[in-house]
Amino acid sequence: MTADLLASVQQFYGRQMRLSEDGAVDEWAATFTEDAVFEDSTEPEPLRGRDAIRESVRRGVARIAAADLDFRHWFGMVDVEPDADGGVFTRYAALAVVTPRGGTAALLGNADCHDHLVPSPGGWLVRHRAVRFDGT
Amino acid sequence: MTADLLASVQQFYGRQMRLSEDGAVDEWAATFTEDAVFEDSTEPEPLRGRDAIRESVRRGVARIAAADLDFRHWFGMVDVEPDADGGVFTRYAALAVVTPRGGTAALLGNADCHDHLVPSPGGWLVRHRAVRFDGT
Amino acid sequence: MTADLLASVQQFYGRQMRLSEDGAVDEWAATFTEDAVFEDSTEPEPLRGRDAIRESVRRGVARIAAADLDFRHWFGMVDVEPDADGGVFTRYAALAVVTPRGGTAALLGNADCHDHLVPSPGGWLVRHRAVRFDGT
Repeated sequence: MTADLLASVQQFYGRQMRLSEDGAVDEWAATFTEDAVFEDSTEPEPLRGRDAIRESVRRGVARIAAADLDFRHWFGMVDVEPDADGGVFTRYAALAVVTPRGGTAALLGNADCHDHLVPSPGGWLVRHRAVRFDGT
Repeated sequence: MTADLLASVQQFYGRQMRLSEDGAVDEWAATFTEDAVFEDSTEPEPLRGRDAIRESVRRGVARIAAADLDFRHWFGMVDVEPDADGGVFTRYAALAVVTPRGGTAALLGNADCHDHLVPSPGGWLVRHRAVRFDGT
Repeated sequence: MTADLLASVQQFYGRQMRLSEDGAVDEWAATFTEDAVFEDSTEPEPLRGRDAIRESVRRGVARIAAADLDFRHWFGMVDVEPDADGGVFTRYAALAVVTPRGGTAALLGNADCHDHLVPSPGGWLVRHRAVRFDGT
């Protein structure tokens, strides 16, 4: 049971974060529920709803493209805990690695993250994500 | 079989290392057997027994708190090999990432690690851990 | 199904890359098919065939030994997609971490990688690997 759950979450995270890295903004936003909440420890207010999350990542993708960076998200040390309704609470570490064109890879930061994932016909959706950046 | 074993070890490592990161010294020590041995390539002698391991991590947690750092352990590239008694030999890479308050994340070091894990009613326990830091 | 496949690929990657890190050049080359192709975004031409791949890694291992470095490969964010013949297409992130003797760990680079793995009696073999280094 844990094996299936952990594998499905690991696979989901790989696919989800590649969508944003590949600039697929709409497809990335579609991995959140319509009513999803995204908390970021460097922002005063959470993003509320898929539309707000989509517009935020759209700006992020545009900034990264303008800076001509490769921006990679590593999620690891994933812990899964089923909820009572077929969903799962996860905790994981996230590492951001950026490389400028012709330059050297650098750590941008590490974060301690909590998700609440819920099932859908197309796979997991994020209902709640809380990202606490280290050092904040 | 490998899937269940690998998932249970990955999940254990995530939970175990978060205990030390969260400062839960007693709970972290409880993930080792009473007679556990902890070898560290930067120390002249191994730690012998759960009590010695607990006191060592207690000092580590206090140093990290005094330095006001977020200290993260990434375990990855996990390889599992069952022993003959329901336990498992593992080999994995460990990366330490530290971030000072208000500062930038940095790699502290990478290590090549070997564990012997044994089953208990509450899950895996570490009977032997050998951490060889790169560059030593 | 995904759990078994993902676990077997994760376990394969851990074992495969440790072979090159341990300098086991012939054993590493044996994880590729005889007709394997290895594409590297920093090289003008792909390596074609196990022999060419073996000689390339032999030179790499010798350079790393001469520089007295610990060189570690982290593969993560692994995504698996079965092909129609018992093989699997994978996409993953690869991070290279190097540590000089007595020195500090550093990121050498991050890469976005695609493999085509095929089954063999001894486990997975790489038929095709494409490594696109970030920043190139």
